[in-house]
Amino acid sequence: MNASPTFAADRQSGRQLRVTEKALPQHNRAHNRSLVLQTLFRRGAMSRADLARESGLTRPTVSGLVAELTDDGIVAELGFRDGARVGKPATLVGIQADAFHIVALDLSSADRFVGAIVNLRGEVIDRAHVDLDGAVGEEAVARCIRLVDELSTRTTRRLLGIGVGTPGIVDHEGTVRTAVHLGWYDLPLATRLTERFGVPVHVGNDSNVAALGVHTFGDQKHGQSLMVITIENGVGVGLIIGGALVEGEQFSAGEIGHVTVDDDGDVCACGRRGCLEVVLTAPLLAARLRSADAGSRGAVLHEAGRALGIVLAPIVSSLNLNEIVVCGPRALIEGALLRSALETVRNRTLSPVTNGLEMRYAGDDLELAVLGAASLVLSAELGVS
Amino acid sequence: MNASPTFAADRQSGRQLRVTEKALPQHNRAHNRSLVLQTLFRRGAMSRADLARESGLTRPTVSGLVAELTDDGIVAELGFRDGARVGKPATLVGIQADAFHIVALDLSSADRFVGAIVNLRGEVIDRAHVDLDGAVGEEAVARCIRLVDELSTRTTRRLLGIGVGTPGIVDHEGTVRTAVHLGWYDLPLATRLTERFGVPVHVGNDSNVAALGVHTFGDQKHGQSLMVITIENGVGVGLIIGGALVEGEQFSAGEIGHVTVDDDGDVCACGRRGCLEVVLTAPLLAARLRSADAGSRGAVLHEAGRALGIVLAPIVSSLNLNEIVVCGPRALIEGALLRSALETVRNRTLSPVTNGLEMRYAGDDLELAVLGAASLVLSAELGVS
Repeated sequence: MNASPTFAADRQSGRQLRVTEKALPQHNRAHNRSLVLQTLFRRGAMSRADLARESGLTRPTVSGLVAELTDDGIVAELGFRDGARVGKPATLVGIQADAFHIVALDLSSADRFVGAIVNLRGEVIDRAHVDLDGAVGEEAVARCIRLVDELSTRTTRRLLGIGVGTPGIVDHEGTVRTAVHLGWYDLPLATRLTERFGVPVHVGNDSNVAALGVHTFGDQKHGQSLMVITIENGVGVGLIIGGALVEGEQFSAGEIGHVTVDDDGDVCACGRRGCLEVVLTAPLLAARLRSADAGSRGAVLHEAGRALGIVLAPIVSSLNLNEIVVCGPRALIEGALLRSALETVRNRTLSPVTNGLEMRYAGDDLELAVLGAASLVLSAELGVS
Repeated sequence: MNASPTFAADRQSGRQLRVTEKALPQHNRAHNRSLVLQTLFRRGAMSRADLARESGLTRPTVSGLVAELTDDGIVAELGFRDGARVGKPATLVGIQADAFHIVALDLSSADRFVGAIVNLRGEVIDRAHVDLDGAVGEEAVARCIRLVDELSTRTTRRLLGIGVGTPGIVDHEGTVRTAVHLGWYDLPLATRLTERFGVPVHVGNDSNVAALGVHTFGDQKHGQSLMVITIENGVGVGLIIGGALVEGEQFSAGEIGHVTVDDDGDVCACGRRGCLEVVLTAPLLAARLRSADAGSRGAVLHEAGRALGIVLAPIVSSLNLNEIVVCGPRALIEGALLRSALETVRNRTLSPVTNGLEMRYAGDDLELAVLGAASLVLSAELGVS
């Protein structure tokens, strides 16, 4: 394993470009470089001429950037185009998928940390996990480090960086401000991992990271808006609006677990009554299902889904989004709970707003959350999103 | 009144620029032109050298764009800088505020359409209104046209365009798909006004337009997120997230009026029970206050505010926004209703998410909604936002 080359840090600016920002020349260059990578990333290998057409850049600009990216090892010539017309066949250039690998971690699960080695095309190369055994605080950090250690031995490629999705509120420095179930408060996770492994580290909230995963690699069907809900030790939401992640003014967007759903509900750990998490977390639901007789299990799931729907109805109405993807234990979420949540949202909103709404189980949630963590690194280091 | 010059249509593309989009040369030029206007718009007149520094563009690019904008009459030389150091004093260039005027309409009020003549700096030059007298359908369109006629006589400048904020669901063509209280269904309002007045027309939902008004011209205090709530014949929300308006997948973002707040509430016009608009619209509240005795008026306002807070709590939690501005009749909204709404949001959410939340009355709501309508035109025609 080698540290990421120096170009990586320069690329971070590519992520920030907005039309309202200053159009400094180096921004334009980073922008164009990202555009080339983005095009190859999304469309696959192509000739330089096609790349110019697709990206809207000039041929000389494309050639210069391809040369630079080839020197960095990220792009390579990958042979000739099949079925070329008469004349010289065009050389295809494409992402060198395994030029770098990414270590991607998903810390959202209640009982274990999972991770993967991911390549530049977002393909999972290998997987690992460590059981949590109730570890919190420094012991949980140690298990996180052990997981990165374990994954690092699975690749001989240079690491582009480490991406982490963690429960809790995470700021732009990668400090976990609060992750109650892990006992992490103001934990500088990105700094700790950077010091330990010598590569760039990017940390985000688990639901936000899962939303990035679905948006970047998943089967996102509709437009530019997406909600991903993670149901594990708590309930969190990740929102993509207009193609961009919503982080919130205090990095707390998506913290819906303690919204009141029932004024007469049970007392919550937070001290108030009837929060969503009083009827909907993975451990709680699992316990209730275990103690319920066969005939009342459906009612338990229906009640949990209804509580979720009550919280979602105003959010869906205010954003008019069409797609909600739910991550967490499949046995709890898929089926009765999801049906009840969707039905509740429909019953509590105006039909033009929610007619188009679909809610679905994430399928292989591990994969999307891990890929989302990898996309944090791709986005920050290469400007690919 | 003269029609807008031909440059107007070309500028529309400036609005669409995103980092993920193709960086075609004409986009870059529109981008740079918008950047120059944006800088002058926000910072006021300055020298070409300062403009280059502020915008991050090169001196020759700035000089070329200033020459082009001067030819179009939008920018002019406005004298010399005071207190210049020794040597030739720098010539200041700035927005020629009255080169064009904008007709801006706010159709949100329950009893009248209001409008203004606004200049390129967003200053109101003159105002007018027409009473609605319960007009709906074509008669309401006729009153809208009469208001534009009236306003057009108040200026001799060329019109950059007409901006309209209307209740209901509005698509990108400026067609009002549904505005129940005005009896408008699939009404091509932008096309109708363009045909009648021969200038570009931009139509948006009233709450969205009010949000643009606060964001562009108002006293927005916090970050990049803002919610504006309009309480008139209905209750609508306009959201700015990450500096951009949220329109929704079916242009229906912000339609919170028919979210259920009370499962046992009164039957609503929509056929369901306990919608927000069963306890909170301007006419309904006014009627309840008239029939209530002095001692119970506070309770009527408190109940309405609480219903609003119940709907807002999940939205604020999912977006973690800090600023909510409420428009509508001052006598109903300012005071007890707002206090109750904020208290309810705080009581029903996690404190780290809503500690920073402020809710305030819009003050002069007419002004902001009208200025928002003007900003639709500034944004679409000049790329200034």
